[in-house]
Amino acid sequence: MVSVQEQMAVIRRGAVEILVEAELEEKLQAAARTGKPLKIKAGFDPTAPDLHLGHTVLIQKLKQFQELGHEVIFLIGDFTGMIGDPTGKSETRKPLTREQVLQNAETYKEQVFKILDPARTRVVFNSEWLGPMNAAGLIQLAARYTVARMLERDDFHKRFTSQQPIAIHEFLYPLIQGYDSVALQSDVELGGTDQKFNLLVGRELQRQEGQRPQTVLTTPLLEGLDGVNKMSKSLGNYIGITEPAKEIYGKVMSISDTLMLRYYELLSDIDLVGLRRVQDGVEGDAGGAHPMESKKALARELVGRFHGPGAARQAEEEFVLQFRQKEIPDDIPLIEFSAGQPVWICRLLAETGLVASNGEARRLIQQGGVKLDGEKVTDPDLEVAISAAVVLQAGKRRFARIIFKQN
Amino acid sequence: MVSVQEQMAVIRRGAVEILVEAELEEKLQAAARTGKPLKIKAGFDPTAPDLHLGHTVLIQKLKQFQELGHEVIFLIGDFTGMIGDPTGKSETRKPLTREQVLQNAETYKEQVFKILDPARTRVVFNSEWLGPMNAAGLIQLAARYTVARMLERDDFHKRFTSQQPIAIHEFLYPLIQGYDSVALQSDVELGGTDQKFNLLVGRELQRQEGQRPQTVLTTPLLEGLDGVNKMSKSLGNYIGITEPAKEIYGKVMSISDTLMLRYYELLSDIDLVGLRRVQDGVEGDAGGAHPMESKKALARELVGRFHGPGAARQAEEEFVLQFRQKEIPDDIPLIEFSAGQPVWICRLLAETGLVASNGEARRLIQQGGVKLDGEKVTDPDLEVAISAAVVLQAGKRRFARIIFKQN
Repeated sequence: MVSVQEQMAVIRRGAVEILVEAELEEKLQAAARTGKPLKIKAGFDPTAPDLHLGHTVLIQKLKQFQELGHEVIFLIGDFTGMIGDPTGKSETRKPLTREQVLQNAETYKEQVFKILDPARTRVVFNSEWLGPMNAAGLIQLAARYTVARMLERDDFHKRFTSQQPIAIHEFLYPLIQGYDSVALQSDVELGGTDQKFNLLVGRELQRQEGQRPQTVLTTPLLEGLDGVNKMSKSLGNYIGITEPAKEIYGKVMSISDTLMLRYYELLSDIDLVGLRRVQDGVEGDAGGAHPMESKKALARELVGRFHGPGAARQAEEEFVLQFRQKEIPDDIPLIEFSAGQPVWICRLLAETGLVASNGEARRLIQQGGVKLDGEKVTDPDLEVAISAAVVLQAGKRRFARIIFKQN
Repeated sequence: MVSVQEQMAVIRRGAVEILVEAELEEKLQAAARTGKPLKIKAGFDPTAPDLHLGHTVLIQKLKQFQELGHEVIFLIGDFTGMIGDPTGKSETRKPLTREQVLQNAETYKEQVFKILDPARTRVVFNSEWLGPMNAAGLIQLAARYTVARMLERDDFHKRFTSQQPIAIHEFLYPLIQGYDSVALQSDVELGGTDQKFNLLVGRELQRQEGQRPQTVLTTPLLEGLDGVNKMSKSLGNYIGITEPAKEIYGKVMSISDTLMLRYYELLSDIDLVGLRRVQDGVEGDAGGAHPMESKKALARELVGRFHGPGAARQAEEEFVLQFRQKEIPDDIPLIEFSAGQPVWICRLLAETGLVASNGEARRLIQQGGVKLDGEKVTDPDLEVAISAAVVLQAGKRRFARIIFKQN
C-alpha cells in the first residue's frame, strides 16, 4: 500500500486546486485504516464524444486515483441531456433519446477505457436518481441556494452584467450536479477549472445533508500544439485520441521542449522520479534525459496508449526512417497558419517566412528546391489541401511543420 | 343576456388595471356568440383564512363575473403549501398536511360562499396537475423565463439590490402559478395589485403554449376604517367577516363619507345607477341619496351578507336605539389612536383633542361630563382597554369614535 504522503504527491501532480488538502489527507488516512477506498466522482456530458488529449488530463488523474486503489465513478449526466436545452436558443442542445445516450456512453467508454481500467470503473447514469425525482423534490433542492450566490459564478456574473439572458433552469443545473454528489456520497470530485463553482455546490449540498463534504480537485486546461492556446478542435491545435498512430507520433514530435514537459506532467504515466529526469534534461542539468529522446518516449507512450505498443514502435520507425530518407531533421519549428480552404503553395511559402516572396517561391519550385511532406513540388500553381499538418521544406535547410488553423 | 358594453362597465368598476381591455371585449363577444362562458381564475393560499372586508374586494369582483354568467374557478394553491418553505427561515411557512389543506379549504369556502354562489363556483387544487409533475417538467418550465426578467418583479428587485437573500425556488413560484393558468386554460385571472407580475407570467406561459393569453385584472387594496392605511388585522382598522353583526354595523357607521363611497364601489352589490346616486348625495348634487341613509344601507347590506337580513335589521334597530338613548349622534368623527396596552382615560381624552389637557379631562370626569360607549365615567384613573373601537364623549357635544392602532 502506498503511503498517504506518496498518494498526496501523486494527486497533487498537475492539479490546479485541491479544496481542501488537509481534508483529503484525512480521508486518505481513514481509507488506509479501514481499507475502504475513496469514491472519486467525475461527470461527463452524454453528447457524442470525440476526445482529444485535452480531455484526457482529467481521465489521467482518475487513473492515478484508480491505481492508488480508489473507486472511480464515471458519471454520465444523461438526465439533463435527455431534457436538452428547452430554451430552443441553441441548436446544439437538442434533447437526446435514451438510445442516443446509451450509444454515446458506449463511444465514451470505448475511448476512456484506453486509459481507465474498466474492471475498476463504476459507470452510472444520473437519470437513475433524478428521473424519479418529482417537481416538489426539485423545489426543495432549489431552496438550498440563493440567487445572489448563483450569480457569483463567473460565467453567470458576466452574462448578467452584460445583459445576456440567463434562463432560470440554468440555475438548477449546478444544484442538480451537486445533488449527484449527495446521491453518490462521493469523497472527491474532479473537474476542469471551469467546473470549480459547480463542484463546490456539491460540497455544500453534501454538508447540508450531513455528509462529509467532497474534496474538490480541479485539473488545468491543456495547451494545444502551439503551446499557447488551449487545445481545441476549432483551433486545429489538437491531437485526437482516435487519430492514426503516425499522426499522433508526428504531432507530439513537433511540440516545443517546454510543452513536452507540460504534456509529461499531465498526460504521461511516468512516475515522479522519471518526470524529474525529463525536466532536468530540458533545463540542461546533470543527469537529465536527452530532450529528443524524452520526446520520442512521450510520443511512443501516447501512441501506445491509444493504438498499442506495436503501433507505437512502428510509428517511431516510420517517423525516423521518413525523416532520415527525406533529410528532414527530427526537430523542426512549428508554424500555425490560418486557412479556411486550400492554399496556394507560393503563398504558403511566403507567408510562413520560408521564402521572402511569392516570386521567390515560384522560382524555387521551378528549380526543384521545394518539398511538401518530403515529396518534391513541381507545380508552382499547386493548391495545398488543408490537413492536420504538413512538413514544408525550402532549399536545403529551411523546414517548417505547418499546423493549419481553421478560420 | 347583458350586452358586452354593459358587462365591461361592471367589470371596470373598481378595477385598477385590465390587461388588455380590448382583448377582454373580444372574449366577451365570443362568449356571447358561442354561449360558452369565460373561465375566471383566482388563486388562494391554503393557509387558514380569517377574512376581512379587504379580502372580499377580489371575491366581490368574482361574484360580478359569476352574475354575468361566467365560470369562476376558485384555485387553492395547495401544492406549494404542502411543500412549505424549505429554507426554514420563516417559522410561519411550515408545510401543511393534506388534511390541514382540506380543512383550511373548507373554512375558506364557508366564508367566501357568503358572497359567491357555490353552485356556480368550481373549486380546484393545483396539486392535481403539479403533484404528478416530475423534476424534468419543472426544469422545462424554468427554461421559459430569464433571471433578469424575474428580478424585475418589485419585491425581488428590492431584495436583490438591498442584498436580502432570495432562494432560487422563489423564482419557481411565479412560474408555477403561471402554469396553473395553462392547466386551467383560464380566460381571465384576478389578483391584487401586488400579484400583477405573477398574473402576467401566466399570460406569457399561455401564449408560449399556443393558448389565448388570459386577461389580467387587478383589484385595489381596500383602505381600512381610518381611510388611509390598507385594511389589515395588525393595524386594527379592519372589519372581519365573522365579527358580530352589531360590530360590523357600528364600524361601517363610523367611516367617513368619502370612504363610504369607496366601500360602495368595491364591496356593495348596488348597481352602477345606485352607485351614482350615493356619489351625488355625498357631493351634494341634486337627486343624490342622503349620505347618512346611504351609510345605513351599506351597513345593512354588509351585515346582511355575512349574518343574513334579519340580523342586519336588528343591528340597525339596536344601533339607532342605543345612540338615541345615549344621545350619541349617528355621525361622529373617527380618530385613530396608537396604543399597545390599556390607556389612561385622561390621556386618551387629551391626546385625541376632546379636551385641552389631562387636568381638564380629570375635572370633566369629576363633574360627570365624560362618557365611554354611552356610560358615564366616574373614575378619573380609569384605564381604557384596547378594543376594536370605543365611542368617547366629552361634555354635551364633543364625540369621537376611537380606533385603536396597535403599535
